[in-house]
Amino acid sequence: MKGSIVVGQSGGPTAVINSSVAGVYAAAKKLGVKHVYGMVHGIEGFLEDKLIELEDYLEDPVGIELLKRTPSAFLGSCRFKMPKIEGHEEVYEKVFEIMEKHDIECLFYAGGNDSMDTVKMLSDYAAAHGKPQRFMGVPKTIDNDLPVTDHCPGYGSAAKYIASSLKEIIRDNESFGAKKPTICIVEIMGRNAGWLTAAAALAKGEDCSGADAIYLPERVFDMDAFMEKVKHLAETKSSVVIAVSEGIHIADGRYVCELANENVAVDAFGHKQMSGTAAYLAQLIADETGLKTRAIEFSTLQRAASHIASLTDTNEAFQVGHDAVIAANEGKTGMMITLDRNGEDPYQCGTSVYDIHAIANVERPVPAEWITEDGCGLNEGYEEYARPLIMGELFPIFVNGVPQHLVRK
Amino acid sequence: MKGSIVVGQSGGPTAVINSSVAGVYAAAKKLGVKHVYGMVHGIEGFLEDKLIELEDYLEDPVGIELLKRTPSAFLGSCRFKMPKIEGHEEVYEKVFEIMEKHDIECLFYAGGNDSMDTVKMLSDYAAAHGKPQRFMGVPKTIDNDLPVTDHCPGYGSAAKYIASSLKEIIRDNESFGAKKPTICIVEIMGRNAGWLTAAAALAKGEDCSGADAIYLPERVFDMDAFMEKVKHLAETKSSVVIAVSEGIHIADGRYVCELANENVAVDAFGHKQMSGTAAYLAQLIADETGLKTRAIEFSTLQRAASHIASLTDTNEAFQVGHDAVIAANEGKTGMMITLDRNGEDPYQCGTSVYDIHAIANVERPVPAEWITEDGCGLNEGYEEYARPLIMGELFPIFVNGVPQHLVRK
Repeated sequence: MKGSIVVGQSGGPTAVINSSVAGVYAAAKKLGVKHVYGMVHGIEGFLEDKLIELEDYLEDPVGIELLKRTPSAFLGSCRFKMPKIEGHEEVYEKVFEIMEKHDIECLFYAGGNDSMDTVKMLSDYAAAHGKPQRFMGVPKTIDNDLPVTDHCPGYGSAAKYIASSLKEIIRDNESFGAKKPTICIVEIMGRNAGWLTAAAALAKGEDCSGADAIYLPERVFDMDAFMEKVKHLAETKSSVVIAVSEGIHIADGRYVCELANENVAVDAFGHKQMSGTAAYLAQLIADETGLKTRAIEFSTLQRAASHIASLTDTNEAFQVGHDAVIAANEGKTGMMITLDRNGEDPYQCGTSVYDIHAIANVERPVPAEWITEDGCGLNEGYEEYARPLIMGELFPIFVNGVPQHLVRK
Repeated sequence: MKGSIVVGQSGGPTAVINSSVAGVYAAAKKLGVKHVYGMVHGIEGFLEDKLIELEDYLEDPVGIELLKRTPSAFLGSCRFKMPKIEGHEEVYEKVFEIMEKHDIECLFYAGGNDSMDTVKMLSDYAAAHGKPQRFMGVPKTIDNDLPVTDHCPGYGSAAKYIASSLKEIIRDNESFGAKKPTICIVEIMGRNAGWLTAAAALAKGEDCSGADAIYLPERVFDMDAFMEKVKHLAETKSSVVIAVSEGIHIADGRYVCELANENVAVDAFGHKQMSGTAAYLAQLIADETGLKTRAIEFSTLQRAASHIASLTDTNEAFQVGHDAVIAANEGKTGMMITLDRNGEDPYQCGTSVYDIHAIANVERPVPAEWITEDGCGLNEGYEEYARPLIMGELFPIFVNGVPQHLVRK
């Protein structure tokens, strides 16, 4: 590669998306790329020519190690949707103008479904207008709902946080025993796909009975069956911990969180901002059974807890960033790097590239065959798939008792 | 010591209360104590003669290492208040009867204010009735509100979790920048004392601007001043993260969480069960400013997250358990072990014993001189006090990607 490159981050951040930026930087340095720029706040900032030089932060190898351990988007993120090309050509021309100004040959964009749409639109525009610049997608989403790729960087760390924290919550919930049983409802992110909630299944082990029921948005949520299940569990166990997806919905399509609050806010992509499912269900149970209940939302922590990141996930996030640069150097464009599982035991994973058109805006749910017949659990198929993704640890560098992060000046 | 001993755990569990049990066991083994029993579910279980032998779990040294890394109460906890002696002598006699049956010379009870009351009542009864058995309190509370002792085991780990998680939340909240500012309200435990919420101040460092405002229950919460502060922050910063105690209350004494929900439940000790402060404030801000808001409750996780326990705290929890046995062996009874800070730089801490009557049922607030003049921050005095308590890490033993725990069979 003769020119320079730019990397951006987009959408909800994860614990390891910065590791992908580190991977882009490392590969670019090996290839002798002139400048490795970072977009400040994704394509939205790029359109305003807001760039930094990664060299300023990563020349020192400790900088790379800190970056890998820093949660959220080091470069800043955005939720900017590229407009349709017709009638908005000036937005597209602006992107290419800024790329030319800085001699940027390739643009790398780390994100999920919505962000891959940006890569698709830009590479389509380039193809239609004979532009030489190349565009590559770098997968990232705790939601794990991108198609084609075996899994998405960010998922393993979120799953490790969820499984580990749930195990600690189960220990806590068990402490008062049968005399003061508490029904604990834990709400986990995932609008349409239940991948994150499924990770509750990973809390189970020889030292832990695990979650007592797990409700994914892939199945219609039956309130009556749920209450029956809770009552049965409360009669047979001294501690009940149930994991629910924020996206569970009843038969008429309404989200459970909407039953509590009809004025649910909507974001720039038209997605409903959800929260309150656990609190609503906990109140219902308390009202109907008189039992003590507790509602817990993992909230932002499940995507930001780099202090308990999965080493496998961190390394794979680095790998997809790295391999996106290698692929672009070979002339690829309009593609996303995918993770391909090449071995189960021991787990092995490689990468390849795939046409972005088959990926952008497509959501992959948890396969029906991994959900137990009663609809409130995951079977061994899921565990075999997910367990390798949470293996290994990359401990923070602690300074003054708290994890140290790399931040923009 | 010729006979046997018993140790119990009581009240809300912590990340390191099991380390105190390990300390009791280790000291007892050194002294050649015959049997080291554990009460299953505290004094409530003891009254039903529910005991286990710690030897069964801790003979293997790996068992002790696992116990130190297991959150919540390994032995099971309870919220049982000893009745007043007059008219309830049979409850007290039952305790001594079970002690005699098992040749138990000393009873060790790890807990906070309410649990120290149990130690006081039992030792008072023994003194009044010429009973030879001894009773020692082992301090434990994330709330850090026991008097006399410099600090309480459990606090350092909760504070480390709060500071580290808040830092990750701040990183996340900053990611979308000035174009999509989010006001994030984080709710932290602490009914009457703001020690846990104060720990939000420890997120600050050269890589992090820290919490933008911190509201403790030690000061009356002024809703108008709060809204003014939020509006001012929103105008001057692209990310606003505010920490509030669940126990903040307005001038007429009502808790902020009661403003949202008048039917607040009450526990066995008459304490209100609190939650919903952050959600209430976030909604108020959204309604009044139109800004995007987010409410996060650390909830149970702040007392259960042994995966990010403070090594200093874990060691001190071990020490107070250990030294309680040494003190009892020297004939002490009706006392609690206290932590005494002997050096600031470097930090050094020893233990001594103190009359339980001066401790039981007394709550120690955050000193007024550590709260900033505007009432929404902590000054250096607090940081000098608290920083040493969160130093060092005792990483979990990870099995299958999640922390391994020691559990009762």
